[in-house]
Amino acid sequence: MAQEKTYKIAVIPGDGTGPEVIREGVKVLDAAAERFGFKLSYNYFDWGGERYLKTGDTIPKGGIDELRKHDAIYLGAIGHPDVTPGILEKEILLRIRFELDQYINLRPVKLYPGVWTPIKDKGPEDIDFVVVRENTEGLYAGGGGFLRKGTPQEVAIQESINTRFGVERCLRYAFEFCRKRNKKKTLTLVGKTNVLTYAWNLWERTFYEVAKEYPDIKTDYAHVDATCMWFVKNPEWFDVIVTDNMFGDIITDLGAIIQGGMGIAAGGNINPEGVSMFEPIGGSAPKYTGKNVINPLAAICAGMMMLEHLGEEEAARAIENAVIKVCRDHLKSLSAGKMGYSTSEVGDLVANYT
Amino acid sequence: MAQEKTYKIAVIPGDGTGPEVIREGVKVLDAAAERFGFKLSYNYFDWGGERYLKTGDTIPKGGIDELRKHDAIYLGAIGHPDVTPGILEKEILLRIRFELDQYINLRPVKLYPGVWTPIKDKGPEDIDFVVVRENTEGLYAGGGGFLRKGTPQEVAIQESINTRFGVERCLRYAFEFCRKRNKKKTLTLVGKTNVLTYAWNLWERTFYEVAKEYPDIKTDYAHVDATCMWFVKNPEWFDVIVTDNMFGDIITDLGAIIQGGMGIAAGGNINPEGVSMFEPIGGSAPKYTGKNVINPLAAICAGMMMLEHLGEEEAARAIENAVIKVCRDHLKSLSAGKMGYSTSEVGDLVANYT
Ligand SMILES: CC(C)[C@H](C(=O)O)[C@@H](O)C(=O)O
Ligand SMILES: CC(C)[C@H](C(=O)O)[C@@H](O)C(=O)O
Repeated sequence: MAQEKTYKIAVIPGDGTGPEVIREGVKVLDAAAERFGFKLSYNYFDWGGERYLKTGDTIPKGGIDELRKHDAIYLGAIGHPDVTPGILEKEILLRIRFELDQYINLRPVKLYPGVWTPIKDKGPEDIDFVVVRENTEGLYAGGGGFLRKGTPQEVAIQESINTRFGVERCLRYAFEFCRKRNKKKTLTLVGKTNVLTYAWNLWERTFYEVAKEYPDIKTDYAHVDATCMWFVKNPEWFDVIVTDNMFGDIITDLGAIIQGGMGIAAGGNINPEGVSMFEPIGGSAPKYTGKNVINPLAAICAGMMMLEHLGEEEAARAIENAVIKVCRDHLKSLSAGKMGYSTSEVGDLVANYT
Repeated sequence: MAQEKTYKIAVIPGDGTGPEVIREGVKVLDAAAERFGFKLSYNYFDWGGERYLKTGDTIPKGGIDELRKHDAIYLGAIGHPDVTPGILEKEILLRIRFELDQYINLRPVKLYPGVWTPIKDKGPEDIDFVVVRENTEGLYAGGGGFLRKGTPQEVAIQESINTRFGVERCLRYAFEFCRKRNKKKTLTLVGKTNVLTYAWNLWERTFYEVAKEYPDIKTDYAHVDATCMWFVKNPEWFDVIVTDNMFGDIITDLGAIIQGGMGIAAGGNINPEGVSMFEPIGGSAPKYTGKNVINPLAAICAGMMMLEHLGEEEAARAIENAVIKVCRDHLKSLSAGKMGYSTSEVGDLVANYT
């Protein structure tokens, strides 16, 4: 009998409701593994706010190298009400993205049937696009500093650092992704070429250069401000979007809300040649912690993306179909406390349908 | 008999549909002046794409000083399909904002009764807030450059330059504005403190320092990404928002769409001690040019803001009430070509009701 394939998963449940939603995610992943004949072995990491408050430590020495030994990382949520904002985000989340060179943040924006969207007259056929966000440079590079800090003459500079190397690999990923997705075969660059004339000149030049290698892909461009309007007014215009780190952060949250909110939105931090990390994109939701009311679907969808990334396409599709069934036939709402089911019941439902 | 007060207005109709909507704006301004007993004298400037294509010139020598001789500037739209994007924006629009030190971009987001919003379950009582956008620094300062341009090792840097001076005067304006508005007396700083730790540290520090002088104003903070979600999901949470130039650009376009779109959204570029400029925020809409189908209400609302700024509060309220009547009792839609009225008919209606 052939040896079953085993994937080593690093699990970082994190803060707040992170552990609760990850528990349901693991339940569903195990159900899928069982059904589709592969194995998942999990190593848990207790990184997050609690540990930081106890030890003063965010990621212990050697921690990043531990992550490298895995096939993928499954993250719950980072963020603790008693920790100054920025510390955990920068020293855990952003540090992993940067050190593991997860240079793509992949955010599907897909409205499932039966899911409530706050925008009028749009259905699942209108809201189905993917944002490819650069994930390792731009304004997130941490460049900048203060001059005369604390004086009336203070200057604070924040630099968006963009490299041909970083921009090009992100664009190539987006073109390839658009080709494989094979929907409208249209890639839209979202930027601000008319004002940020250094950063977006590099992006635009590289975009049209790389585009020559993809004659089958139509290219388009939109300013980031106009894009926000179109997400609400004409989301059906988009197929695949590529943008920088900061604009990607902004438009993907807007994308999350039109696809039904934090209860369902998931994303992948991808290094195509390395170790990638998958996460629900909502926060740690402290006020719902331990109440068994938070929606685990976003974490479950992150798990689904992880399986797809690992090559288990069939299992991923089974989870997606189970999520669609649960949204359509069961949940009253995707919001915490209003689902008509508890966190663990939702996990059970999806696991059963998978 | 007392001499009537006369305001000198510099008018820049600009490109595309700019002249058409400004014509209706002037019609309404004149009606208001007539009724409320003041005068407006207009000087027209032909700056824009046509002039640039003919002469290669954007603003002629001495042009900015000409503007300084006026009480206010009334702008149509800048942007021409045959001119490389960026040139007219930077050399006309942004140049005026910077040289006249119009350090506030004021954007009321108000849904009038009867106006269609693309978001569900929200009405005029929910969508009524104001964004105070810093208008002269941040990423718009033009800082940055290229290293090894055109090579595989290229680096493009775009700098967000924030000064204590610039941030503080913007925050003070916002606090004062919030006090005068006297609605929820809540000022929300919108930023990205957890990642852009130089720029937003300065903003945040200054925000809480200045706040001490305004004990009657409640302060709040939201990340820019979350703010975009809340604009769509819970716009009723906001009263006055203050943010930087780039984030302000993005969130005000989103604000425009929830208040009914480009047909109605107007803004002011304000130098409280100098010459301010008022504009509809939609573009030059080349495809509708000369067809008498574009909606002039945004330009009319810009005119209303201009009168308010000049101290003609009563006249401004009369225009606003006229706009409300026209939206509620006449227009079928705010979109170009779908209003059920022509551009000039809409101008006539508002002028008659004023
Ligand atoms: C938590 C925060 C640092 C993060 C980001 O800004 O990237 C989040 O908003 C996201 O989009 O994953
Ligand atoms: C035209 C463009 C330069 C401008 C800006 O980015 O400020 C516009 O989007 C605005 O918001 O007034």
